[in-house]
Parts: sequence; C-alpha cells; structure tokens
Amino acid sequence: MTVQEKMRLLFEAWGRLSDLGRARAILEWDQETMMPPAGTPHRAQVLATLSGLAHEKLTSPELGEILAFLEERKKELDPLEAAHLREASRARQRAVKIPRNLVERQARATSLGLEAWKEARSKSDYTLFLPHLQEILELKREESRCLGGGGELDLYDPLLDQYEPGMTAKRLEDLFGGLQGPLAELAGKVRESGRKVDLSPFQGDLDPEAQLAFGRKVLAAMGFDLRAGRIDKATHPFCSGHGPGDVRITWRFDRGDLRPALFGLIHEAGHGLYEQGLDPALDRTPAGPAASLGVHESQSRLWENLVARSLPFWEGFAPLLEEVLPGRKGPAHPEALFRAAGEVKPSLIRVEADEVTYNLHILLRFRLERKLLSGELPPAEAPAAWNDLSEELIGVRPERDAEGILQDIHWAMGAVGYFPTYTLGNIYAAHLFETARRDIPVLEEGFKKRKLLPLREWLREKIHRHGSVLPPERLVTEAAGAPPTPQALLRHLEQKVSALYGV
Amino acid sequence: MTVQEKMRLLFEAWGRLSDLGRARAILEWDQETMMPPAGTPHRAQVLATLSGLAHEKLTSPELGEILAFLEERKKELDPLEAAHLREASRARQRAVKIPRNLVERQARATSLGLEAWKEARSKSDYTLFLPHLQEILELKREESRCLGGGGELDLYDPLLDQYEPGMTAKRLEDLFGGLQGPLAELAGKVRESGRKVDLSPFQGDLDPEAQLAFGRKVLAAMGFDLRAGRIDKATHPFCSGHGPGDVRITWRFDRGDLRPALFGLIHEAGHGLYEQGLDPALDRTPAGPAASLGVHESQSRLWENLVARSLPFWEGFAPLLEEVLPGRKGPAHPEALFRAAGEVKPSLIRVEADEVTYNLHILLRFRLERKLLSGELPPAEAPAAWNDLSEELIGVRPERDAEGILQDIHWAMGAVGYFPTYTLGNIYAAHLFETARRDIPVLEEGFKKRKLLPLREWLREKIHRHGSVLPPERLVTEAAGAPPTPQALLRHLEQKVSALYGV
Repeated sequence: MTVQEKMRLLFEAWGRLSDLGRARAILEWDQETMMPPAGTPHRAQVLATLSGLAHEKLTSPELGEILAFLEERKKELDPLEAAHLREASRARQRAVKIPRNLVERQARATSLGLEAWKEARSKSDYTLFLPHLQEILELKREESRCLGGGGELDLYDPLLDQYEPGMTAKRLEDLFGGLQGPLAELAGKVRESGRKVDLSPFQGDLDPEAQLAFGRKVLAAMGFDLRAGRIDKATHPFCSGHGPGDVRITWRFDRGDLRPALFGLIHEAGHGLYEQGLDPALDRTPAGPAASLGVHESQSRLWENLVARSLPFWEGFAPLLEEVLPGRKGPAHPEALFRAAGEVKPSLIRVEADEVTYNLHILLRFRLERKLLSGELPPAEAPAAWNDLSEELIGVRPERDAEGILQDIHWAMGAVGYFPTYTLGNIYAAHLFETARRDIPVLEEGFKKRKLLPLREWLREKIHRHGSVLPPERLVTEAAGAPPTPQALLRHLEQKVSALYGV
Repeated sequence: MTVQEKMRLLFEAWGRLSDLGRARAILEWDQETMMPPAGTPHRAQVLATLSGLAHEKLTSPELGEILAFLEERKKELDPLEAAHLREASRARQRAVKIPRNLVERQARATSLGLEAWKEARSKSDYTLFLPHLQEILELKREESRCLGGGGELDLYDPLLDQYEPGMTAKRLEDLFGGLQGPLAELAGKVRESGRKVDLSPFQGDLDPEAQLAFGRKVLAAMGFDLRAGRIDKATHPFCSGHGPGDVRITWRFDRGDLRPALFGLIHEAGHGLYEQGLDPALDRTPAGPAASLGVHESQSRLWENLVARSLPFWEGFAPLLEEVLPGRKGPAHPEALFRAAGEVKPSLIRVEADEVTYNLHILLRFRLERKLLSGELPPAEAPAAWNDLSEELIGVRPERDAEGILQDIHWAMGAVGYFPTYTLGNIYAAHLFETARRDIPVLEEGFKKRKLLPLREWLREKIHRHGSVLPPERLVTEAAGAPPTPQALLRHLEQKVSALYGV
C-alpha cells in the first residue's frame, strides 16, 4: 500500500473520530442550553457511550497499524502529511498509555469531586472538598507517570502538554518570572494614583434584549457569521464549535451592568471567529482543529481586551450604544466608556479580574498546582497557602475559602495544568495585536468607523485557517515574525494604566 | 455462562445501541430547530457516522453470539426476557439481512429523491420525480425480498412490519374494507346536509405567543411535563423522545387561525405523553421503546380528536380561551368551538383533512402503494390513478399533481408501508377511548372542569409504561379487553356527524 492510500485510511478513521467528538460537543451544548432538567441521566449515558466508542476507535489495532506504517515512511511525507501524523499519533499515544481503569477512576473521582466542590463552595467549607482534591491529585500524578512524567519529564509537563502542546513548566516559570514584577508594579501604581473609574456609562436598569442587541451589532462588525453560528443564553458563557459552519456561543447578563454581557459576548465571539475561520479543507482531519488552548484564548482575549476595551473602538461604537441601549446612568462618551471598560482594581475573583491583575490570579494557581502535584504542598495546607499568595501577588486576602481556593471549578474537574493557557493567551494576544497594527497601519483608524473586518481577515490568514498544522508557538512566531514574549503584553498594560491612571 | 449473565450482556450492548440512536435523535431535533444553515454538511457526516457505528454494533458477531445463546435457551426465559429477545432479534435480523450495499443505495436514492420531490412539488411537475420513484420502488422491492417478501410473504408485508410489527397487507385490506363504505356514506351525509360550519371562533389576527400560551395551558392539563420536555418552533410539527426525561415537541402556527397551532400541539403532546410514560426500568432495553407507530399514532389522535375536538373539552376550555386569546372573530361558546373543531369537509390535502375523510386519504395511499410495489401499477400512470381514486373515495379531484400525488413526503423518503399506521392509530384510539370512558365513568365530566389527568393516568397504566413488551395489537387488546376493530371509530364518527350536521 502506498503512503497516499494509508493517508486516506487515516482520514477515514479520523473523520469518524471527529464526528464522534462533534456529536459529543453538540450534546454538551444542548445540555447547557436546551435540555430539560430531567434529561440529565439519559444524557450522561449517551455521552459516556460516545466517549467509550471514541476511545475504542482511537486505541484500535487498525488505527495503530496505519500510524505505524506512516511513522516508518515518515521521510516520504510532505509537511502537511507530517502534521497529520504528528497530531494523530499524539492523540493515540495518550489514549493508549492511560489505562482504561485509570480513565474510569478519574471519571468517577471528578464526578464526585464536582458535586463536593459545589457544596463546599456554597458552604465555604474546604474540608468537604479536601478528600476529593487529594484523590484527584493522586490520579493526576498517576496519569502523568503513565505519560512519562516524574522521570525525565517534570510531573507537571504531560498534563500541561494536553492543553498546550510543547509547553513545559520550566518555560512557564521563565515567562511568569518576567511578568510577575512588572505586573505587581503596575497594580501598585494604580493603587497609589488614588483615582477611581466611573462605571456609570455601562450601568443602569438595562433590558437584557437590548444588551444582546448591542452585542449583536458588535459581533456583526467583527464578522461573526450567524448563518454559521448561534447565540443562546446559558449559566456560563462558552463557545462550542461543531465545524466551521456551526459555531455556537452563549451569554449571560447582569441587569445593572452591560459589561458582563458585552465583554462576554465579544470574548466568546473571538473564540467563535477562530472556529469559523478553520480551513474547511482540513475539516475532520488530525491537523484540522485549533492549535491549542493558549492560541484559542489569545483570540478571545485579543477581541475582548485589545479591541473592545480600546479608545478607538469606543469612538466607533459610542454613538451606536446611545442608540441601541439608552437609559444608562452615565453618558456614552468614548473616553468615559474607554475608562470604564479598562478599570484596574485588585479583586478576589479571577473571572471578574481586570487585565492587569488577571495574570497574577493565573500565576497564583500555577504556583499552587505545581506544588500540590509534586507533593511539596499538602492539600490540607492549600487554603492558607492560597490566601498568603493572594495577599502577596494581588494585594487582597480572601476571608472565606469560597472567595479563595474554592472559587474555580478546574481542579474539581481534574483540569490540572490548564490555568497557564489563560496567561499564554494574553501573551500571544498582545504579541499578535502589535503585529497586526504594524501590518495594517490604518487598523485602529478603522475601529473608529466600526470597521473590524480587516482584523478578522488578518487573523484568519495568519492564525485561524492553519488549524494545528503548526505547533502553537511556531504558529504565533510565524504570524508575528518573532517568538512570543511577555513584552508586548507589558507594553500594552503600561500604556493603558498610564492613560487611565496618569501614572 | 447463565441465561442471566447473557441477558446482562445483551442489556449492556443494547444500552449502547440505544444511546447511539438517542444521539442521532437529538442531532436530528437540533437540525430541525436550532442548527445554523451552514451546519448542514457537518451534520450529515456526523449522522452518517453514528448510523454506521450503530449498524456495525447491531450486526456484530458478539451480539449475534449473545442472541443465539438466548434463542437456544428460550424455554428458560420469563415473558419479559422473551420480549427483550424477540425485539433484539427482530432488529438484528433486519440489519443482517439487508446488505450494506443496499442500505447505501437506498440512502443515496432517497436523498436525491427528496430533493427531486421538493422541486417536483413546487413546480407541480411529476416527471421530475418519476425516475426517482421508480428507483426507490425497485430498491424497496429488493429490500422486501431480502426480508422474505415476494415468496411466502406478500411483498408489502416486510415493509409494513418495520412500522407495525405483526400486521399484514391482508389484514389491512379487511380493516380498510370495513371502513370504506361507512366513511363514504358519512361524507355523503355531510354533503347532503348542506350545512356549513362557522370557523370564526378560532380565527382572527392571533398573536403566535398567545396561541402558544393557550396551547401550554392545555398541555399542562394533559400532564405533559416540561421539566422532562420542551416546546420549540419548527417548519413541521414533530415529537422527539430521548428518554422519558427528555421529550421534545415542535409546533408551527397560522396567524389567522388557531387550529393548526393548537391541534398540532395537542397531537404532538399526545405522542410526548407516551414517551414520557415509558417505564424508566425498561429504558435502553430492547423492549423499552414504544410498541409501534400505530400505537404511537393512537395516542396523538386520541388527544387531538377524541379529547380536544369534543364538546366536554370545550365546555372546560372555552372560558380559558377567552381569557388567554381575546380578539378572535367569533365568540368562545363551547358549542361553537366544538362545531368549528369538528368541521367535516372533503379536501385534497391529507394533513388538513377532517376526521372522517382522513382515513379515506390513507386508504387511497395504501391501495396505490401496494400496486406500485407489486408492479401492477406503472409509476408513470400513478398520477391518473391517484386522481381517479381521490374522486372515487373522497369526492374531490386534484387539478395539479402538487395537490395530488406529490403532496406527501413519504415515498420520496422511502417510507413505503408507513401510511396505514395513521389509520391503525385512529382505530386503536377510538377503541381505547371507548374503554377509558367505560373504566372512568366521570371522564368527560372531568373534561368540563379541565381535568384531563385521569385519562393520562389510564393511558400510562394501560399503554405507555409497557414499551414493546407486548406486540402492538395484543397491547391494545389487553388494554381494551377486546381486539381492536373499526367499529369504535365508526361509532365515534357517526355520533359526531350526527351532532354537527344533524344527519
């Protein structure tokens, strides 16, 4: 059999695997948005069956034989074929190396862990979650060891690699090391300035439908295509892609404040544009999906922060806001909206954090989860360690664990190694945006006229259409002409703090 | 291995098969109600993959071995176990006997056939559909032969059996034979009476949300549980069950007339109550699903016609209609609403037909599709045969094929043998309703107070909860204490015609 024929067999098998993943994704979207409450047990079973079938197909000897054949004749592959092989092998090796028994124990532990976490958070009682966290960490250690962690590799790396291929804990330490001091300094400057931002331009008694209507105008300008997408209400905002022709985002609102709905919609639409921009020719192939969570987050953060919290953006959209959403407490002056959108204020809760302190929240979690995983920090001592680190890094100390260590769902879900992708996203976003500004000199002049499409086209060309043909860091490097560093992010934040707080 | 252990293996395998079917059903529901237009190609692929996997699992040697073992030790099975074996074997034999090649050719032919039918209907040009119908019929003949048709069995029977297990063309001829004369006579009486029904109590400029609001009140009284269900808009009304805890119905409306929305909702909710009433202990087992399409249709027609078009029903709901949906052209007098809901008027389009002539539409299709399948009627001559038979049976002659042979989607979908289940449903419905009235003497007194729940409880106990443990006809026979005949239906229609038309 020729390499081309084997490649075709790989595509056939992978197409079916993609379809199983897509079916799952639609059922999960449906569960969050549409499913009646009593559907829960049926849905859990259907999802488990689809996962089991996907695992069966991914670990099947037939697929193993195809990949082994291609690995052997690797030299004959062109770069795109090599990318398909790399991604397919990566996924299969992971599936083969982790025993089914461990997968099932993890599923059980995180399912119980999530329930316990919900109760623990609502009662702010960490002891209810502690035994579950201990077990989950033990299972994550076991997973890491199956994947080579704890030997040549840092125990953290195989877990991180699942979310951000190629990244290591050591490189993250360097990246975060370069961020920590300057971010703390910026937060300090804001504190010392004593200035307060007036939020009233976003506040009032705001009809949710009008909030959505304004969001839709922005999304239309961004080029989020509703013939290939949907917007629905859900308890938490997310983006769910089921192929470039079917990308769905969700939103929620605060009746008194436009910001959660608006910036949430723009954030998710940033993810959505990435999914809609994937090359249809790569659809259902191993290298077809987005490059990594970090790159994905870069797209949402870029639109949310670098575009929609900028002054040119509000010069363009302020008149439209006045028109679509009257009745806010403060006037729709571009400058006032820019200030209100950019408020920097240290806070306990990550998902409400501003652009500057957000990354300190991530640093906190990264430091803690590394120590928890290695065993250096016993889980019983984690709440105190959290509170100390919060005070040290962010300058605020939680009084209740619900506002501290119990605030995030990730560890209860078993997502250890996930948090850093948020900050990687911020770093990539600023790095890419600087390049886009250089490549399109009139970019921000366009924002003033609500012309956002040139940016979408630039991102589609440089990032979206490539799927995971290139590894994430290389993709960003090629798009920007230089490897990503935190410098662009720091430059952006310094300028913003200076503009808003005069320091 | 013991019978019990093998049974457990059967349940495990069947649970996964059910889950695959459920995943498909949710994706199909999503496609009709939620999916953005550009999602079509992705969705088609996901559905094809899920169907292929289900076929692979249903025809797998592992499942074959389990069923063979149980068949051999059939005498040791209790009645419930025997029912599971019967239903599982039935499904597997069908899948094994029809070659994959034929399934694929049918999928292709009906996919092209559906497109051609849509165009043919919109242009009222039968010649566009003719070659597709020819091919579809050829493939259905081939399917029937694979299943034993054309030899000892009538060519029609294996196709019919798919929708109504145990029913045969010969028995249908007897049933329909008993219906035809009396129905024609009733239609004639109505014609001769010269009376016209005043439809204004249902007509006006009616806000769709208010139409739905009234429908919801009726559905709540019926006991359709929205914690275990949903109602959404779609181009055509349907009911989609994904387990007793997740049953979804769709509706459409006519701004000028409440009847399509209201009776459509009640009809689908009748199907929905059946799905919600299935025994959760039978969920995901071979004998878990509803008994047949005929029995399913009996539930929707019972609520739509025998309940919601009755005088006691409108005595109960007329005041509520006035309250929820003001602004209709005619007043909400119970008697007026009863008359308007029961109008008998021969018409060309089946889905708009009244209770009397509806079954003549079905008889027409049944007669024609038998002759088309056997080859007695060449497809080229079918439009003329349709028109003649329409004139003979219903008393109206289509002038355009769009209003004649091209009106229904079923043959284009390859659903030959499906139509009779509609009339079986009507027969079962009337037979069951007579029994319910006998078992609950205050039944219709309750309707006058909007108490519909006792009927749902009766149906749940007698029909819904049994799944397909009993074959359809036996289920109805045991529920009613006597085998179904068309007599109850005829009695009901005679009474109605007499009440409305004084004849």
